[in-house]
Amino acid sequence: MLRFACKTLRMLQLDVHPTGRHFLQIPGPGPVPDRVLRAMSLPTIDHRGPEFGALGRKVLAGMREVFQTRHPVVIYPSSGTGAWEAALANTLSPGDAVLMYETGHFATLWQKMSLRLGLQPEFLAFEGADELLPNAPGWRRGVQADQIEARLRRDSGHAIKAVCVVHNETSTGVTSDIAAVRKAIDAARHPALLMVDSISGLASADYRHDEWGVDVTIAGSQKGLMLPPGMGFNALSPRALEAAKTARLPRSYWAWDEIVAMNHDGYWPYTPNTNLLYGLSESLDMLLGEGLPRVFARHQRWAAGVRAAVNAWGLPIQCADPSVYSPVLTGVIAPSGVDADALRRVIHERFDLSLGTGLGKLKGRMFRMGHLGDSNDLTLVAMVAGVEMGLKLAGVPLAASGVQAAMDHFAAPIPDDHRRQR
Amino acid sequence: MLRFACKTLRMLQLDVHPTGRHFLQIPGPGPVPDRVLRAMSLPTIDHRGPEFGALGRKVLAGMREVFQTRHPVVIYPSSGTGAWEAALANTLSPGDAVLMYETGHFATLWQKMSLRLGLQPEFLAFEGADELLPNAPGWRRGVQADQIEARLRRDSGHAIKAVCVVHNETSTGVTSDIAAVRKAIDAARHPALLMVDSISGLASADYRHDEWGVDVTIAGSQKGLMLPPGMGFNALSPRALEAAKTARLPRSYWAWDEIVAMNHDGYWPYTPNTNLLYGLSESLDMLLGEGLPRVFARHQRWAAGVRAAVNAWGLPIQCADPSVYSPVLTGVIAPSGVDADALRRVIHERFDLSLGTGLGKLKGRMFRMGHLGDSNDLTLVAMVAGVEMGLKLAGVPLAASGVQAAMDHFAAPIPDDHRRQR
Amino acid sequence: MLRFACKTLRMLQLDVHPTGRHFLQIPGPGPVPDRVLRAMSLPTIDHRGPEFGALGRKVLAGMREVFQTRHPVVIYPSSGTGAWEAALANTLSPGDAVLMYETGHFATLWQKMSLRLGLQPEFLAFEGADELLPNAPGWRRGVQADQIEARLRRDSGHAIKAVCVVHNETSTGVTSDIAAVRKAIDAARHPALLMVDSISGLASADYRHDEWGVDVTIAGSQKGLMLPPGMGFNALSPRALEAAKTARLPRSYWAWDEIVAMNHDGYWPYTPNTNLLYGLSESLDMLLGEGLPRVFARHQRWAAGVRAAVNAWGLPIQCADPSVYSPVLTGVIAPSGVDADALRRVIHERFDLSLGTGLGKLKGRMFRMGHLGDSNDLTLVAMVAGVEMGLKLAGVPLAASGVQAAMDHFAAPIPDDHRRQR
Amino acid sequence: MLRFACKTLRMLQLDVHPTGRHFLQIPGPGPVPDRVLRAMSLPTIDHRGPEFGALGRKVLAGMREVFQTRHPVVIYPSSGTGAWEAALANTLSPGDAVLMYETGHFATLWQKMSLRLGLQPEFLAFEGADELLPNAPGWRRGVQADQIEARLRRDSGHAIKAVCVVHNETSTGVTSDIAAVRKAIDAARHPALLMVDSISGLASADYRHDEWGVDVTIAGSQKGLMLPPGMGFNALSPRALEAAKTARLPRSYWAWDEIVAMNHDGYWPYTPNTNLLYGLSESLDMLLGEGLPRVFARHQRWAAGVRAAVNAWGLPIQCADPSVYSPVLTGVIAPSGVDADALRRVIHERFDLSLGTGLGKLKGRMFRMGHLGDSNDLTLVAMVAGVEMGLKLAGVPLAASGVQAAMDHFAAPIPDDHRRQR
Repeated sequence: MLRFACKTLRMLQLDVHPTGRHFLQIPGPGPVPDRVLRAMSLPTIDHRGPEFGALGRKVLAGMREVFQTRHPVVIYPSSGTGAWEAALANTLSPGDAVLMYETGHFATLWQKMSLRLGLQPEFLAFEGADELLPNAPGWRRGVQADQIEARLRRDSGHAIKAVCVVHNETSTGVTSDIAAVRKAIDAARHPALLMVDSISGLASADYRHDEWGVDVTIAGSQKGLMLPPGMGFNALSPRALEAAKTARLPRSYWAWDEIVAMNHDGYWPYTPNTNLLYGLSESLDMLLGEGLPRVFARHQRWAAGVRAAVNAWGLPIQCADPSVYSPVLTGVIAPSGVDADALRRVIHERFDLSLGTGLGKLKGRMFRMGHLGDSNDLTLVAMVAGVEMGLKLAGVPLAASGVQAAMDHFAAPIPDDHRRQR
Repeated sequence: MLRFACKTLRMLQLDVHPTGRHFLQIPGPGPVPDRVLRAMSLPTIDHRGPEFGALGRKVLAGMREVFQTRHPVVIYPSSGTGAWEAALANTLSPGDAVLMYETGHFATLWQKMSLRLGLQPEFLAFEGADELLPNAPGWRRGVQADQIEARLRRDSGHAIKAVCVVHNETSTGVTSDIAAVRKAIDAARHPALLMVDSISGLASADYRHDEWGVDVTIAGSQKGLMLPPGMGFNALSPRALEAAKTARLPRSYWAWDEIVAMNHDGYWPYTPNTNLLYGLSESLDMLLGEGLPRVFARHQRWAAGVRAAVNAWGLPIQCADPSVYSPVLTGVIAPSGVDADALRRVIHERFDLSLGTGLGKLKGRMFRMGHLGDSNDLTLVAMVAGVEMGLKLAGVPLAASGVQAAMDHFAAPIPDDHRRQR
Repeated sequence: MLRFACKTLRMLQLDVHPTGRHFLQIPGPGPVPDRVLRAMSLPTIDHRGPEFGALGRKVLAGMREVFQTRHPVVIYPSSGTGAWEAALANTLSPGDAVLMYETGHFATLWQKMSLRLGLQPEFLAFEGADELLPNAPGWRRGVQADQIEARLRRDSGHAIKAVCVVHNETSTGVTSDIAAVRKAIDAARHPALLMVDSISGLASADYRHDEWGVDVTIAGSQKGLMLPPGMGFNALSPRALEAAKTARLPRSYWAWDEIVAMNHDGYWPYTPNTNLLYGLSESLDMLLGEGLPRVFARHQRWAAGVRAAVNAWGLPIQCADPSVYSPVLTGVIAPSGVDADALRRVIHERFDLSLGTGLGKLKGRMFRMGHLGDSNDLTLVAMVAGVEMGLKLAGVPLAASGVQAAMDHFAAPIPDDHRRQR
Repeated sequence: MLRFACKTLRMLQLDVHPTGRHFLQIPGPGPVPDRVLRAMSLPTIDHRGPEFGALGRKVLAGMREVFQTRHPVVIYPSSGTGAWEAALANTLSPGDAVLMYETGHFATLWQKMSLRLGLQPEFLAFEGADELLPNAPGWRRGVQADQIEARLRRDSGHAIKAVCVVHNETSTGVTSDIAAVRKAIDAARHPALLMVDSISGLASADYRHDEWGVDVTIAGSQKGLMLPPGMGFNALSPRALEAAKTARLPRSYWAWDEIVAMNHDGYWPYTPNTNLLYGLSESLDMLLGEGLPRVFARHQRWAAGVRAAVNAWGLPIQCADPSVYSPVLTGVIAPSGVDADALRRVIHERFDLSLGTGLGKLKGRMFRMGHLGDSNDLTLVAMVAGVEMGLKLAGVPLAASGVQAAMDHFAAPIPDDHRRQR
């Protein structure tokens, strides 16, 4: 019997980047901390044993802190897309009208999902024009709460059952004002549920499920939580739980009732994502140990540094409204005539740096620089440098050095409450 | 600024078993190989980059080999339960009649799911009696294909759209004959789709999706594939893909169409489970490197050794029909008066050994010994020894030494094609 | 440029055991806890940075607890053999007489080393006979302190500069009484230094550097400390430090002076073993968290269980004196006519279980069963079962079932202070 | 008995950098590839078993390729300092004269070691002056082979037994011409052995043990081999092996004879560094897979980029002779009045970037930027940016942007044979 093997095998090597550390600067998944990766590699345990219950209770309590809620949080073995479906399927019935708002590609995908599930979405959008992106003016701005208020006021029969908006639009780099949406609904005295996708916002941008009166918040593991993909989240409100009792969309995997009941003791009705939960336990230790306000300030400071670079280059930032700049990613519109995807390819091949592509209506027109999760000043300067070198290789004329602007930003004094700490 | 921290923190320790290696002998998740755990801890990559495409194509091709199919395999970020829902939601319409068969707890859960999704399941069961488990005679036997044939013959209008059975019933340790079910459907000349749950069978017990004419096979990552939980699988047939075109159950996350289209290049419509796919790549290298026939023979040999022990104790094996003994797990009926869960607790506390509990109708009446995945002879002897010591501590009189019987089995000559190799 | 590679490469697979967990039951290196392996895989840091200093101070303080000493402990990037050389080179001068005691193969190797270094060792040995091992009667017993006392009394000129003994003889399974050796030296009113090899004893068997008046204790990482090999240790006494000031054996790498000085702040004069120190930090957390008395009791209980098996088989235990049975390993003498190494080979090939070989004078005559480090009851029962099956395959007649005897032992009530805890 | 623990424990956290990836830019240990770290975390195996022999033979063969030698390579569990001692102790006798050359701090430490070991070193040094560093002119230049030749010519009695030089002086960033030293010895027709420290050169800078006629080359694991510290290497020549037969310095741990004999089958006389050998196996796959010429070209290109930055700043490079610039690290002389260590501290605290300190005579006068091992263009740009921001924070006036100069370099076309590949 062979006890060892020097064998010739056709194998896929999983870690075959060129030398050195890959710069994963897409707006999620972002870089996963070394501690989290190691935690995830511990042996799988019995999901019905006592050790697991302690783990389950811990991560559920920690996630409530992250969502800033006192109400139940549901964790799915799924992508964020699954958590979108869970939010709709638990609260709505076939044919229900929902009011959605087009902030970008992901808002659009969520709207398409609602169609597939048999809902009747109405898709509001920014009504102004945009010179730079005439085909997608709304993809440069946040949710316009006044449009929502106006529409709800007209819905005197309360046919609209839910308002669905995206908090941080990953395809554009715009972080909408959720409190304003809540106020709009309240101003219209409308009973619609408020459902918010904060898949790429949570744990990077400030987010307050209870204070903002959100009924269902959707999130995912691979962004601010600094984990690999594989888990979706729903944070609930009492009204959402109430709605679930009468909602008639068929659901089983996504059904909150059994999960919430079993979560009380830290268990799940079906086999949960054990090793990703190890990682979540570790990332919660890191995030809550640092303190959420510092985490948010850190991302704001990073984002400002990256925007300083884009401004120095003289390239337009995708988000046209500075009050809703995303702390998570910055979209950059490519000069006309430049194929943003060809540019990304050059940057990837020459500098081992991954950037986000332009999605949907913006294909080839823009690229996205992620500045989320387990990162730091020098990593972001390196990203800016990689993009700047790529722009030059692509022949794009630049107004000035973005790297210099980013360095000026990052070398400036840090307010005490922004300091990177863990 | 603090650069290090000797800090007093309330932490959950993730690896706090008593000393030594925990014996995870539940029927899944089973022990994950060290290689797989390390592969899973490599840094997450861009799920839209070229390296990912190569990974995607590799694991999809490998999974087709494991399912023994030439048709598409779909991989979900989900538990196996999600893959159940995917199978139903893609192929059926609200109110459709489906024929299901009660082999145990998981067959029952699947049936309940079909009700929640708005289907009309008819739940066949073994019609004989059982002295030992009068409340669950069917939970000691496999699917009775003749009952299915008879029922389908009566369905001359072809109202029944699908036959749903469980291949390896994880709650009992019975591995039904799927080829016989196919023959029964064919004999009845009935067009119903055949859907099979092989969540705990695949990659441990022989399974032939194409040869057996299965339309949808459901599987999960945490059993024979030797991975942590977090991925569900559907293997498809051309008829299943055809049915999906007209099926009207609402679906989005589970919808095959977009996934199968994008999988062609190794990508997914939403963010897949990157780090679990690393693990899958590694476990496929191990399984296909060993060769499936050897993998199956290995499990058969293990199972026979464990059954030898149970027989020596004089305790009844849950599965009453030797032709459908499971190679994955062995259910053992506790002597009357013995609370099987109290017994399991003693064994866990004293010997750091996790066994499967009695589920549903069998709560407290039986326990399950897993012998799947990354295991070997001595690990199974240790499991048998832990159970035997626990039985004695619980005051259960034993006919003879099960450990001795297992050792006699494992020390016997090994046929060439059973030899453990990698 | 290639971004990924499906390449045909001649590779050595590092983890190519047959399926399942290898049983590493040699008397060191033993099984390394999963937590320790993960800690070792964290990124290497600057050995001159502030974070490193904190690590250094922590592990040095922890090692003083483990040695039960208030005096300096020196950590070398080396095997235990290097720490032997360090002890001699720091305290002695060319031509110095040293009194050593032959307890087995490792005592012999240390004596040979002293010759290579230019010392004049006198090698005492047990003077009685042994029927079973007539060529190595002393390899079945501990250090006879009265012989040492007598020899030292005769050395009225104090030519002998050091007494060197092995605490736990890894080649035999005998744990000598070090306190008795100290008493013998004191009774002879002799100024010789006492140097003790506790490479395989430390952190498994009780060991008290200060209380027993040891001047230099030698240890290694890969035994009771539950680490991979790669670090050697010297625990010092004030007298040893004093002796180092005048000792004239050439030394540089091993020289205590600079190391002890720099260790004060947690640093080293040359680059230390950073990643193994991560592992040490983790294993110290585990050992000191459990408490040394429990660690020692755990090993004693394990050892008694293994000896119960050997006694049941009717095979002679290598250690002929029950008062010095080792809690770390048990040597077993093979029946005459049985080649112990052929037996070990069968056991390795059939059951993926590694045992220790017979060393030096005992080659082929005995084998060694390790029961140290990160282990537990069921793992040891599995080891016993593997050996028992191997003995049967080799045709060795056994008096009774050793597995049964071990199970009787391990299923007996556990005194409170022996309970496995972490 | 507790089965899990939410416990309050005083723990040292091993991975407590501020957020994101630390930039470890000291000239070794450098960044360790993720693959290597994972390989090192696989379970320890029996160092006497068959699997280990295959591992041993593989890494020994691989190391011969790296040293470019057909003769034996010896691997020690030790730091590089230990391998220095091994070279001297195996080949020399007490009182032997050795000719050493002061190129910097490490050459000086080696010379001090030779004194401690009882040798009589003669320490040559560059005889010219240097305005910038009047106290250490020789620390800005390589070995002057003509001085060596002249000295050997005067040694007509061949009292000098060895010439000892440092290939890549880690304290300065100077890579001496070893072939020239060989020529000098040959020109003087002197039989002295040539011993070379390439601890920080090997596997980053071109090095040819056989072609250059070196008798003993000393190396370490934590530099170009991309491993954590913990292993030292000696590459031998037939003349060195011959010299070892009569050399009389006491030695045991370092003695080549037994190691070389046992290495034939892939084993060691004492317990080797198993888990670091796993890492070595992996890094050899990476280095030899890329091909040494590409590895060397990669480092040359990196070094040129870093020097372009230093030149742009207008700061003096420590190495005054461009023909011996190191491809591994670049020393930078701080402007007078600037405390280089205070500067390093600012950079570490603000930018989580570790740089090398000024050692010995250069304390506080310079700092060292490492560009070795598992790195890439963007990582080096980030390092340059971190230093540049730190210089500004320290108030150092800079002539121009070093970051811009580095980017100009790294964005320039790459000659085909320099391309980063794996």
